[in-house]
Amino acid sequence: LGESGLLRSLRPYLAPASSELIIPSPDDDAAVWRVGSTRVVATVDTLVEDIDFRRRWPGFDFRVLGRRLMTINLSDLAAMGATPRYALVSLALPRTLATSAVDRLYAGIAQQAQRFRCAIAGGDLSATRGPITMTATVFGEVPKGRRPLTRHGARAGWRIAVTGWLGSAAAGLKLLEAGRRPSTVAERRWVQAQLEPVPRLDAAEVLQRAGVHVAGDISDGLYREVERIAEPAGLGAELWADQLPIEPSLKQARGATAWRLAISESEDYELICAAPRGQLEAAARALHSTTGLRLTEVGRFTPDPGITLVRNGRRLQVRSRGFEHFR
Amino acid sequence: LGESGLLRSLRPYLAPASSELIIPSPDDDAAVWRVGSTRVVATVDTLVEDIDFRRRWPGFDFRVLGRRLMTINLSDLAAMGATPRYALVSLALPRTLATSAVDRLYAGIAQQAQRFRCAIAGGDLSATRGPITMTATVFGEVPKGRRPLTRHGARAGWRIAVTGWLGSAAAGLKLLEAGRRPSTVAERRWVQAQLEPVPRLDAAEVLQRAGVHVAGDISDGLYREVERIAEPAGLGAELWADQLPIEPSLKQARGATAWRLAISESEDYELICAAPRGQLEAAARALHSTTGLRLTEVGRFTPDPGITLVRNGRRLQVRSRGFEHFR
Repeated sequence: LGESGLLRSLRPYLAPASSELIIPSPDDDAAVWRVGSTRVVATVDTLVEDIDFRRRWPGFDFRVLGRRLMTINLSDLAAMGATPRYALVSLALPRTLATSAVDRLYAGIAQQAQRFRCAIAGGDLSATRGPITMTATVFGEVPKGRRPLTRHGARAGWRIAVTGWLGSAAAGLKLLEAGRRPSTVAERRWVQAQLEPVPRLDAAEVLQRAGVHVAGDISDGLYREVERIAEPAGLGAELWADQLPIEPSLKQARGATAWRLAISESEDYELICAAPRGQLEAAARALHSTTGLRLTEVGRFTPDPGITLVRNGRRLQVRSRGFEHFR
Repeated sequence: LGESGLLRSLRPYLAPASSELIIPSPDDDAAVWRVGSTRVVATVDTLVEDIDFRRRWPGFDFRVLGRRLMTINLSDLAAMGATPRYALVSLALPRTLATSAVDRLYAGIAQQAQRFRCAIAGGDLSATRGPITMTATVFGEVPKGRRPLTRHGARAGWRIAVTGWLGSAAAGLKLLEAGRRPSTVAERRWVQAQLEPVPRLDAAEVLQRAGVHVAGDISDGLYREVERIAEPAGLGAELWADQLPIEPSLKQARGATAWRLAISESEDYELICAAPRGQLEAAARALHSTTGLRLTEVGRFTPDPGITLVRNGRRLQVRSRGFEHFR
């Protein structure tokens, strides 16, 4: 059935969009509703031990895990162009967990929340006989005068762009899963990309100011997110494998298969956005000058449905390989 | 260390109260913050399989479980005098779970949300190799012109009262844990009290209108909640065991130990409140006439610290027995 199938099966039970509930998730990266004249953005994300992380990974650190819990949620706010305000955290922890581990976990959560000016307003703690299971709910606001970023409204011919580098986080995950400590500068960078992604809140603001309003986060895979933007709009897309922003060291290490990491197993908490070419180019210049981050064109939306990969001048149809917990 | 110890250890990482973050949880049943001129109330609660429920309980039903997930959160909103608005639900489910089970779970969640006019705005779904772990985050608003109910502000001499019946849910839990199907009308009622608590949203509104503003929910036990109200105020309390509202059938079945169920293992999603005697009596009349629910005086706050139980005219000091997941 797959995760998206199960989420679809939840759809009949979800409230429909209305003048108050502007965007029900899972139509987008987060839900948006009105409180008075304020557009509140709310998102929830869970990390489950042995699915999303393992304590036996080399160098495992509860503080880093805590930061990551906040990041995956803050990334959803970034994808909506919202400014973080408050978080609630719910932890289900085995009784056997050392107090020092819990302390480090809390510290990591608090540290990342503070860094992005998000107040931890409360939480809940449960025991579990199973894996560590941690849920954060994060609330933000769309600043007045700014338009939320959503998956809605892409047009044929618009270019598709992504922030940062792709594939490094997936390469880092493969090292961790193999139980290998990173031994080179490049490997350390990949592991870092996996464990310590940065929520692209600043980038989202730059995109909004540049007039971009179609965006998402690609943590479920570039392919999946392109599909989520294209399908409801009745569009298809072309992705340019040779243009994907892959670190040179990763390209060298992985050779001809590097693009696969970048397109389907992403794990990258980067933003995708779509707009007419000139607007994306202006956004890329603004982004680079304010944050140093790159914004790279990686494809375009087409009037015909289906997603095509163009590589070395050859076209191939891609099957969905975005990560599904329930595949 | 205990759950409250771990929650206390989280305190240094929590944002302090401010003009915007009016009440950080876990100082109260939920967090309260301002969005514009609206006071938003937000709470998160998790149900973990084999801690909070078991699939092997006789008559186990995923739909009832879904309703309960909403209820435990809505009860926190009731304890704050807030009106429900939106919920986000995050489920970590084993891959082996049947689709029909997931459907029933969703249906129960949606049913209870709809019953209390709370829109399911979104959610998240993860796989787990462990127990079913479900988190709901519920947002409400304190209606303009009404004062939130909080644990803060009780005074010596004020009477303590609770809604509904106490102890029935704990009696129901004992039956379920013993693997016994309820065989009498009374036993069915106890199991029902355990599995299908009712969030006291209507009662909260009646209390607010009667001018009551100190309240909480006693799902962690009456004793614990009295302690949480008394301690920060520098007060103690006297609880009157002979006055506890215990169903006659439960009193008969449990005899001299019925009060223990009611005071320490509660499991009851009932409200506690405190106010001067006359005000509570007026509130009780209003509550009974609008909802048919009883509001029973069960004790009073004292200037001396410590919680004393008075039973058959004898006084005994009570040790904390509120349920702690980490005891």
